[in-house]
Amino acid sequence: MLKKTGATGRRKAEAEAGPRTVAYDELPQYVGYQVRRAQARIFSEFEATLMGSELTPGTFGVLTLIRANPGITQVELAAAFGIDKSTMSPVIFRLEKRGLIRREVLPADRRCHALYFQSSAEADFLKAREQVRRFEYRLAARLSGAEQAELARLLSKLQGDPEAPGA
Amino acid sequence: MLKKTGATGRRKAEAEAGPRTVAYDELPQYVGYQVRRAQARIFSEFEATLMGSELTPGTFGVLTLIRANPGITQVELAAAFGIDKSTMSPVIFRLEKRGLIRREVLPADRRCHALYFQSSAEADFLKAREQVRRFEYRLAARLSGAEQAELARLLSKLQGDPEAPGA
Repeated sequence: MLKKTGATGRRKAEAEAGPRTVAYDELPQYVGYQVRRAQARIFSEFEATLMGSELTPGTFGVLTLIRANPGITQVELAAAFGIDKSTMSPVIFRLEKRGLIRREVLPADRRCHALYFQSSAEADFLKAREQVRRFEYRLAARLSGAEQAELARLLSKLQGDPEAPGA
Repeated sequence: MLKKTGATGRRKAEAEAGPRTVAYDELPQYVGYQVRRAQARIFSEFEATLMGSELTPGTFGVLTLIRANPGITQVELAAAFGIDKSTMSPVIFRLEKRGLIRREVLPADRRCHALYFQSSAEADFLKAREQVRRFEYRLAARLSGAEQAELARLLSKLQGDPEAPGA
């Protein structure tokens, strides 16, 4: 850890010298941080890839699941992605506003909405999926087939789920 | 993919039968999705671990970097975490509001603020770090030492950075 004494003077010198070398303390030792960092970097690359499309990486994933699971609820979607409902809400809102999905009140529970992919969005979806596939292909090509399988296995094991890689 | 015909009737039956089995389409084949999913699950676990503390996983990481890099700017922080500045801003705001960090105007660039860890926050920080370390220990214990090293190597390689695991 850097000492605090003289920090302002050092900052000034560094601002003139260009970007600083960042000290990460013990974060890089943490496997949780390693996964977080990989995810953030891949997400940035992915975002740049989808730039031409009107879909972000997040909305693409959500749209894929709504399309594959007609009538899925927001709660089920959030659980499927392992995120909380409040993080999911703005994504659903944007997809609905853009006419890519629609909501229907569930007969069994009036507080709950079933979500449906709009068939009119199929062309946009397929176009975005092509971009995603090309990105994935480029990403996966950085690893051999054996390494891809091993990474999937280790990530599953890390989640306490040694028997079900990828799902 | 499920057919749309009869979706409402099926939804009703499923709502009565309990949670549905979600179809993930081709998402689980994507290495980008595998990393995203692992990150989301670890984050949820981590969040539950830090429940007693007033720090979230995100704020803990940011606070660690500000503490280890006195005078770092928000732009440098965002770059170090591989996220954009607008995602970083609310975290900085919360840390400052809680008195854990302070801002100083940079002499070299008046639009830019240098961030400093407040020494009065040291006890809170060390307490949170202990919780993080215990969580990390439990997480890493799901893998052998060799598997931990291999995961770090594969994640680095996936980011197009084969020579510098973890950093």
